[in-house]
Amino acid sequence: MAGERTQLRRHPERGSHAPADVHAILDAAFLAHVGFCAEGQPVVVPMLYGRDGEVLYLHGSAASRIVRALDRGCPTCVTVTLVDGLVLARSAFNHSLNYRSVMAFGTAQTIAEPGAKQAALRVISDHLIAGRWPAVRPPSEKELRATGVVRFTIEEASAKVRSGPPKDEDADYALPVWAGVVPLRQTAAAPVADPRLPPGTPAPEHVQAYWRARKIEP
Amino acid sequence: MAGERTQLRRHPERGSHAPADVHAILDAAFLAHVGFCAEGQPVVVPMLYGRDGEVLYLHGSAASRIVRALDRGCPTCVTVTLVDGLVLARSAFNHSLNYRSVMAFGTAQTIAEPGAKQAALRVISDHLIAGRWPAVRPPSEKELRATGVVRFTIEEASAKVRSGPPKDEDADYALPVWAGVVPLRQTAAAPVADPRLPPGTPAPEHVQAYWRARKIEP
Repeated sequence: MAGERTQLRRHPERGSHAPADVHAILDAAFLAHVGFCAEGQPVVVPMLYGRDGEVLYLHGSAASRIVRALDRGCPTCVTVTLVDGLVLARSAFNHSLNYRSVMAFGTAQTIAEPGAKQAALRVISDHLIAGRWPAVRPPSEKELRATGVVRFTIEEASAKVRSGPPKDEDADYALPVWAGVVPLRQTAAAPVADPRLPPGTPAPEHVQAYWRARKIEP
Repeated sequence: MAGERTQLRRHPERGSHAPADVHAILDAAFLAHVGFCAEGQPVVVPMLYGRDGEVLYLHGSAASRIVRALDRGCPTCVTVTLVDGLVLARSAFNHSLNYRSVMAFGTAQTIAEPGAKQAALRVISDHLIAGRWPAVRPPSEKELRATGVVRFTIEEASAKVRSGPPKDEDADYALPVWAGVVPLRQTAAAPVADPRLPPGTPAPEHVQAYWRARKIEP
């Protein structure tokens, strides 16, 4: 998945073009920052996504600027970042972030055919929270028309990962400065029922499972 | 902070151009996705930042593609997104995300003068973790030269916020489907000391305070 656009210039030791590395990061996150150019003006929009092989499905309102822009089949950059920790070094210069990120380049195209659109929405839903799609009312024809779904095919992608303790200059290890990592993680709190649900309606297993996997452990 | 580029087309009820709303979101996050166009090719890069009024300071290696691109004073889009929860509705269509995001447009310019560069780095450091800068070794001249610091002046910005329970179609409230929100939050675990620190070195108060503010509450 290498190419000129994803040449690893900075910290090449942190980078990879291996599809398995790229896919692992894409599968661990659910929010992408999607960039396109509108007459030389860059626009970066946060979007939910799902992955099917080398394809990312993105969705938004059919009337939104990004969906209309991507409809024209324009070059697109999809960047996904997971933050894993603050890296506190002995020198200001060696401070860093532990993170996993993917930068993917490709061309995006909106999907017109309702069946393909619905299938793509299911990929996004399954990616976001497994088991939700079969539990809810599927989209009506009118809702499908109001939803813009974009198929982004990855042409080139790189993964970058930084992990572990700070790396200080040799001389700095003697400084009386605390150094280390503050681990950061996205966690979920207990599901909050819609106030309009009948009181006492328990959250179903797929919601409980989502929570358990991301739950705050004391 | 309104303008053509930040016209609130979709869900205008979620949006604001008020500086206080924009600043509150920028101050609550620390990672931006920064987009620029390189000959029609959009590039989106995750970068740490700090804010001083309408200026965001961004930094990266002086040799990195983005710092070299921004050096040419190109139009830039800085997008910051905080994820607050999954919104699980009774219909697939009304699923959503609780979030706070800012999209800011402006022109970026690298800073050459070492004093201004160091001052900007301090803004970024203070934004990331208050109290860290005075505790560590400041950058040497060589380190400053190796660091690219970018001054991005916000010309136009919009904030978007979605919060609260799902909004379902009237008829769907009768469906036997659990609906609600799974709150999501970035939390910090206990600081992990660098293995090369003398054993038992306690984390200083500024690190403990950072942890306490983001700590996992049982």
